[in-house]
Amino acid sequence: MTEPTIPAGAPRFSDAAALRASMSAHAGLVESTIDALLPLTSGKENKLIEAMRYATLGGGKRLRGYLAVEVASLFGVPSAQSARVGASVEMLHAYSLVHDDLPAMDDDDLRRGQPSTHRKFDEATAILAGDALQTKSFEILAEADTHADASVRIALILAFADASGAAGMVGGQMIDMEGEGQSFPLDDVRRLHALKTGCLIRYSAEAGAILGQATPDEQARLRSYGTHIGAAFQIADDVLDATATAEELGKTAGKDEASGKSTFVSLLGIKGAQAEAERLVELAVSELAPFGEKASNLKALAYYVIQRRN
Amino acid sequence: MTEPTIPAGAPRFSDAAALRASMSAHAGLVESTIDALLPLTSGKENKLIEAMRYATLGGGKRLRGYLAVEVASLFGVPSAQSARVGASVEMLHAYSLVHDDLPAMDDDDLRRGQPSTHRKFDEATAILAGDALQTKSFEILAEADTHADASVRIALILAFADASGAAGMVGGQMIDMEGEGQSFPLDDVRRLHALKTGCLIRYSAEAGAILGQATPDEQARLRSYGTHIGAAFQIADDVLDATATAEELGKTAGKDEASGKSTFVSLLGIKGAQAEAERLVELAVSELAPFGEKASNLKALAYYVIQRRN
Repeated sequence: MTEPTIPAGAPRFSDAAALRASMSAHAGLVESTIDALLPLTSGKENKLIEAMRYATLGGGKRLRGYLAVEVASLFGVPSAQSARVGASVEMLHAYSLVHDDLPAMDDDDLRRGQPSTHRKFDEATAILAGDALQTKSFEILAEADTHADASVRIALILAFADASGAAGMVGGQMIDMEGEGQSFPLDDVRRLHALKTGCLIRYSAEAGAILGQATPDEQARLRSYGTHIGAAFQIADDVLDATATAEELGKTAGKDEASGKSTFVSLLGIKGAQAEAERLVELAVSELAPFGEKASNLKALAYYVIQRRN
Repeated sequence: MTEPTIPAGAPRFSDAAALRASMSAHAGLVESTIDALLPLTSGKENKLIEAMRYATLGGGKRLRGYLAVEVASLFGVPSAQSARVGASVEMLHAYSLVHDDLPAMDDDDLRRGQPSTHRKFDEATAILAGDALQTKSFEILAEADTHADASVRIALILAFADASGAAGMVGGQMIDMEGEGQSFPLDDVRRLHALKTGCLIRYSAEAGAILGQATPDEQARLRSYGTHIGAAFQIADDVLDATATAEELGKTAGKDEASGKSTFVSLLGIKGAQAEAERLVELAVSELAPFGEKASNLKALAYYVIQRRN
């Protein structure tokens, strides 16, 4: 295994700076969109809304929301419109984190450096907040403000359900729970992560393309781009778990090794895992070729997912 | 408070027998539709599918599914098509039961006389099965087989999200959890139940009308019919909890009084609660007038919800 080198196509510093500015602006837009979509109520169920807001408005990279908005911008969709799709996928992501953190699941007290939702509130509230966030994420996609054409909204909902249900994210989480303490071969680890985290990242890129009414070829390319960066993202996560501190991560570090589960790092070593992530990033970037300069942020993002420290 | 009498409009024996036959046939159709929509897989996530099937295929009255199919039949929708909407709402209902039964929620070991899903499997699997059932219930509505017209599918999804999310079923469950051991005034109990169980029953009737592309007036009547029988259903539930045995219910009886929560029975007495349920059933039946004989099963159903013993 040779030392991984900086890939020839890696972005210049100016591209990385532009990406940071773009991600920061879009994270703010997705955040304010979520804020507007989850108004507090005067009813006795207000604690539920507070927990939904706590779980979704606590910051984070907003990678999924960013992907949706940035891909949609390739097709001229205004960010005020695509930010709704970004808010929807971030709500679904947040629901999955709230449920994953529960004592019966990963039993995590910390999320983004703050108490996880069931620690801040209680278990019942966390279960219900996750449930209601899932509902809300589908509702947003169905609303006319997301797109004037009902068939576009339907396409978004079908792709979303496929990515997040038993054949996607939740299926992956089930495999992960079942595999605790067992070792898996590499192909199984790939499939686990493709489902557990990859599908929703792929969907985020795909959703931008659907919203932008991209051609079938463009949709296939952006879906493939999303698939590859989703896979690279998870490998980078495994590397971070093995190398970063809890302070950097904002969550418990070194959990994978402690739990004995198979990861890309346990199967390929740190350098091998990094090389695999870089290979996937190159594949992702190659799908962006037809979009030229317009896709420079998406190109920089592909490198970012494997260079981040949290 | 006077002894409640059999209402003048109560169905004849022949109507009740026709209803039983119709409910039984449609329960079978909804059951086989769910079965076909949740195929087992060969992947490691198969335990998740097994839990989803366990939670949804365990029988039950299929009141919600029946309502959707029977209302749709008023408008000539074939039951093979409307059974998909029935399966969707039954899956959502099942997810809510799986999560409500969890130790952090109502902590119930028994459901329909069988171990609840987290007792049969484990807590993590039950949480995930509920999550994936919710996703599936939305996915089914979005699929072209549900209706050729995307805007009809969108209308179903919006009504479904409204009924089942934070402003509906889950909001009601939150109020219920917060109210444990507290006494509520009657208006609050009404609102709690309108959200927790009423919304989804109302939606079931409404969904049949949407699928049947009913006129706005017809939709409003069937929505009102659903609202009233939803409220009557819950009052009957409170009465059953106070009067039926665990064997009859297939779940723990007498839980309301033990928990000290306000119910229609604690606030109105058994006879007062029964009278209120009958008043609501009369209101529900009055909405069916324009549909004449075609609605005889729906009329009989309104009486059934307050006469059932489980």
